[in-house]
Amino acid sequence: MAESKQPLVGVIMGSSSDWDVMQHAVAILKQFNVPFEAQVISAHRMPDEMFTYAETARSRGLRAIIAGAGGAAHLPGMVAAKTIVPVLGVPVPSKYLRGEDSLLSIVQMPKGVPVSTFAIGEAGAANAALTAVAILAATDDALAQQLEAFRATQTAAAKAMILPVE
Amino acid sequence: MAESKQPLVGVIMGSSSDWDVMQHAVAILKQFNVPFEAQVISAHRMPDEMFTYAETARSRGLRAIIAGAGGAAHLPGMVAAKTIVPVLGVPVPSKYLRGEDSLLSIVQMPKGVPVSTFAIGEAGAANAALTAVAILAATDDALAQQLEAFRATQTAAAKAMILPVE
Amino acid sequence: MAESKQPLVGVIMGSSSDWDVMQHAVAILKQFNVPFEAQVISAHRMPDEMFTYAETARSRGLRAIIAGAGGAAHLPGMVAAKTIVPVLGVPVPSKYLRGEDSLLSIVQMPKGVPVSTFAIGEAGAANAALTAVAILAATDDALAQQLEAFRATQTAAAKAMILPVE
Amino acid sequence: MAESKQPLVGVIMGSSSDWDVMQHAVAILKQFNVPFEAQVISAHRMPDEMFTYAETARSRGLRAIIAGAGGAAHLPGMVAAKTIVPVLGVPVPSKYLRGEDSLLSIVQMPKGVPVSTFAIGEAGAANAALTAVAILAATDDALAQQLEAFRATQTAAAKAMILPVE
Amino acid sequence: MAESKQPLVGVIMGSSSDWDVMQHAVAILKQFNVPFEAQVISAHRMPDEMFTYAETARSRGLRAIIAGAGGAAHLPGMVAAKTIVPVLGVPVPSKYLRGEDSLLSIVQMPKGVPVSTFAIGEAGAANAALTAVAILAATDDALAQQLEAFRATQTAAAKAMILPVE
Amino acid sequence: MAESKQPLVGVIMGSSSDWDVMQHAVAILKQFNVPFEAQVISAHRMPDEMFTYAETARSRGLRAIIAGAGGAAHLPGMVAAKTIVPVLGVPVPSKYLRGEDSLLSIVQMPKGVPVSTFAIGEAGAANAALTAVAILAATDDALAQQLEAFRATQTAAAKAMILPVE
Amino acid sequence: MAESKQPLVGVIMGSSSDWDVMQHAVAILKQFNVPFEAQVISAHRMPDEMFTYAETARSRGLRAIIAGAGGAAHLPGMVAAKTIVPVLGVPVPSKYLRGEDSLLSIVQMPKGVPVSTFAIGEAGAANAALTAVAILAATDDALAQQLEAFRATQTAAAKAMILPVE
Amino acid sequence: MAESKQPLVGVIMGSSSDWDVMQHAVAILKQFNVPFEAQVISAHRMPDEMFTYAETARSRGLRAIIAGAGGAAHLPGMVAAKTIVPVLGVPVPSKYLRGEDSLLSIVQMPKGVPVSTFAIGEAGAANAALTAVAILAATDDALAQQLEAFRATQTAAAKAMILPVE
Repeated sequence: MAESKQPLVGVIMGSSSDWDVMQHAVAILKQFNVPFEAQVISAHRMPDEMFTYAETARSRGLRAIIAGAGGAAHLPGMVAAKTIVPVLGVPVPSKYLRGEDSLLSIVQMPKGVPVSTFAIGEAGAANAALTAVAILAATDDALAQQLEAFRATQTAAAKAMILPVE
Repeated sequence: MAESKQPLVGVIMGSSSDWDVMQHAVAILKQFNVPFEAQVISAHRMPDEMFTYAETARSRGLRAIIAGAGGAAHLPGMVAAKTIVPVLGVPVPSKYLRGEDSLLSIVQMPKGVPVSTFAIGEAGAANAALTAVAILAATDDALAQQLEAFRATQTAAAKAMILPVE
Repeated sequence: MAESKQPLVGVIMGSSSDWDVMQHAVAILKQFNVPFEAQVISAHRMPDEMFTYAETARSRGLRAIIAGAGGAAHLPGMVAAKTIVPVLGVPVPSKYLRGEDSLLSIVQMPKGVPVSTFAIGEAGAANAALTAVAILAATDDALAQQLEAFRATQTAAAKAMILPVE
Repeated sequence: MAESKQPLVGVIMGSSSDWDVMQHAVAILKQFNVPFEAQVISAHRMPDEMFTYAETARSRGLRAIIAGAGGAAHLPGMVAAKTIVPVLGVPVPSKYLRGEDSLLSIVQMPKGVPVSTFAIGEAGAANAALTAVAILAATDDALAQQLEAFRATQTAAAKAMILPVE
Repeated sequence: MAESKQPLVGVIMGSSSDWDVMQHAVAILKQFNVPFEAQVISAHRMPDEMFTYAETARSRGLRAIIAGAGGAAHLPGMVAAKTIVPVLGVPVPSKYLRGEDSLLSIVQMPKGVPVSTFAIGEAGAANAALTAVAILAATDDALAQQLEAFRATQTAAAKAMILPVE
Repeated sequence: MAESKQPLVGVIMGSSSDWDVMQHAVAILKQFNVPFEAQVISAHRMPDEMFTYAETARSRGLRAIIAGAGGAAHLPGMVAAKTIVPVLGVPVPSKYLRGEDSLLSIVQMPKGVPVSTFAIGEAGAANAALTAVAILAATDDALAQQLEAFRATQTAAAKAMILPVE
Repeated sequence: MAESKQPLVGVIMGSSSDWDVMQHAVAILKQFNVPFEAQVISAHRMPDEMFTYAETARSRGLRAIIAGAGGAAHLPGMVAAKTIVPVLGVPVPSKYLRGEDSLLSIVQMPKGVPVSTFAIGEAGAANAALTAVAILAATDDALAQQLEAFRATQTAAAKAMILPVE
Repeated sequence: MAESKQPLVGVIMGSSSDWDVMQHAVAILKQFNVPFEAQVISAHRMPDEMFTYAETARSRGLRAIIAGAGGAAHLPGMVAAKTIVPVLGVPVPSKYLRGEDSLLSIVQMPKGVPVSTFAIGEAGAANAALTAVAILAATDDALAQQLEAFRATQTAAAKAMILPVE
């Protein structure tokens, strides 16, 4: 099982209520058998744990960190401030502004501390995981082949779609 | 001079380029002779200093912290995560989105970690400082009188405005 | 009971329909045993009562006023125009614009008359109350300890969150 | 001269800095020889004067009030709360949000207290004045004829526009 | 009954599906016993009828026209282009943009052809009707008294609101 | 010269001030030697002329109408309401909202009366003209070849772009 | 049946989940007996098929291509990059941003490669089809008559709408 | 010089006019001595070259592709559709919507085809390059040390900032 190995990707989120969205990242990582860890780390309620997490990420072997957050979504950017491991930010939809606030809070990082940002919600979570896979695939030919196969399957599924035009 | 005394208000900002806006907070504090300190603390480039600043704020006697930031403006919210001293956030206008990103990144804090947010730009900086004064005035009658006088002067100035209607 | 004492915090809102949101402010005040008063004061339908409320706020002992309003949300700003007591504004979500209008109407105050603004909806209401508590805590060590404890509990709850990753 | 007569239209604005926009309202009123008064009344810095102005508007003979304001533009709505004289609101462009905040703060009034809202800036100011003229014209045939003539002239001017197509 | 008299106010809308919103205008007119007419006139599907309606409005005795429309809401502006009778525009909420498109399409009229614009949805419809009443009340003291009474009742209802604070 | 022939494309705009943008449509039509006519027709100041223009468009031989307008941009939609000739709408940037209002006012047409909408400003004007050319090219092989050549030239120009990387 | 003939209009969409919206385009084409083809072509999952589709569109006799897409809606613009056949883009509403992203991704095409853009959702799909009909009608008098009849029926239906005013 | 070696990072943009923004990506790559290539590839004017570029990217040794585009910014997403090499998208500010359109067109990619998105403009371009460096640094300790040093220098520069408070 993926989690028994040394995790290569960390999946973090500000609250267990973000799981509905962030599970789409985990599903992709499982599908590719990428060892990962997943946990709640809240930027605002667990700031010290967040810093420790980020500071130790590289030495613990993490090659990418997927961070989901909503509203004034500070988690991805603050983790990025404390590590050079690529941080992949997922805007979680917020109740009233539907993720517009989350998106801007994550993507508009200042020069020098990058966060790779993805679409609001489920698609973004899955794509952050696919990007983590792609980063790992650069030095892992088997994974690269898996990723190419994933794309081919996806294309085949799209081609097979039938519209109910009589 | 205000700064020689023990500061009661901290004014921080992410970059010296925020000074154009944030000086309007400092000007108010000077006008009210409120002891303050002002410095650059970048959430993303100086995260450890930011945490130390926030952690020591209360014991150092700060009664309010005015934090200005632009874009993915994480400074006010992260300082608030590390102290119970009231944090007053000022959205600094950003180059392309004119502060809409800064405003949402500051104001949309999750339940439990509040940031008092003010208008984008100069007006917000001044009003954050006036709020710091008002907080102090609650237990300082002389300052309260000064604040009432400030308001009266302001009203008088508005009343004295003449329109160039011939 | 909190309300039997001299209220230190006033909670006002434009309509009883704002209660769904604003009760989250009241819940926090109760949790901290802060004496408060809560009532409907409509800026547009009760303008004279609003002015009287604001004018007498300080002499009646209020140390903070939490004002919730939606749409063209004038209540927080107009109360702030009539008192130096800190006004904490809560944007109540509106039916069609989901609180974007409320947020801008509250936060974009002109220089000289500040309103501390919080997130749209429940989180904002709770955070306004926590800010009122923090203002009071500056001169009330017991309350400050309560607030520190609240934060610690909140952190513990976040740390205890478990994700359903198999 | 228009101003020597009993004013029928009041033109008010939050600051003399709004004159650049609001003079377009005054210019229309002059063009139609409608007696008017124009002055600065700030909702936030002159709240009592604002209420007095609104309360006395009808008895002083005002048939319409044109109110221009920017940012958290409370002037039109608060005047409307205190009088049944039609209030015509003009969103003055703000520095960073270009009047989007002003527009929403003016137009999103709750049921029961109406403000007629016009376009952001100069066009809105002129159109508010034309609406005041139209209201007066309902019971003033000469003015109605003037308004019809104004429209005809405007149409003729549009028809006379030549494009530099070679 | 109001409709048997010569109508003083016209209520028009682009489709019968706008009735849910626009009935709030009609309800106010009935409450004030203002003679009115109400019908569907679509700017895009009934352009000739729209022009005829607008051209004859004044001679038929209409003193105000309330026009509700959604999306690319052209009805209020095009009616205003063909009459000097005051046009009161109501942005009807649209399916995907919730009335932001309707609001901008109605309020951003060019200089010279005004439309008084109100809030998106029910509140705007009611307020457009109250503005029509206010216009008529300027030369009808009984109606003015009714309007003052309406406001007083409204204030009393707000004052009577009780919050469920235990 | 293009204009001496029977025009196939009509270019209309609400004001001569729209020429800066709309000349980019005319330039394309000239480049393709498409006979056209160009004139100011204001929806709000010349409504009758607008209707006559639209009503006669098809019988006069127009195969497409390019209509540019800003703000509450009613010209394209109202012309479309009066003709089945394809209407190509160009959002002209507005002073304060930069064309967001123009875009929504043009594109959000109700079912049944279509307007083809293009990008805000110069690019949109040129693309509307290229679409008119494409419509004509469907039954004009020479024009189709011209259009293919235009595209090829455009591709070649893009390929020839050199970046100043040392 | 329409589809047995050589298709004149191609209807494509990024996913079968777009059918709910895009069926409104197909319904119009059927109503006008315009031969069409309809299929899923995903810009991102079937890029090669997309290019082949676009490259062969003209030689296969397509006179217009209706392309619906949501989110980062690249399908209409990329098809337009590969053919001079008019491309009619339909913004499909997205889950969190309700089609604002789709609209901007489709309409803001650069100079030289036009996409005719329509309203978000069902209305836009129907209007894209009506535009395809109008393009064909330019050289098909019977179809033009059908289109005129469609408009007349639509007008009659609007005129027949009755409001439930008692 | 970086470019004489086999490029590891490709920098592409839709037009030479994007250079002002995208040079900030190139400057970072040079600073880190990362071999790169930089060229104009337009999604809409050079679609075939774009596909060839993307298809050959991995076999040519590219480990990341930085793609800048404005408006309906299709370049990053379409390149991502044709390669599993990580694509880093930079929203180039557009003339009228200041990059809001570019941002949404790039970030809102559907599930399955990811684009890592960065801030609008210069900061985003630099951060995309820093992310490319971070991806390479995962398997290049020297580069990782350079990146750590870059961060340390950046922190030192922030700490050295002095505010002009007298």
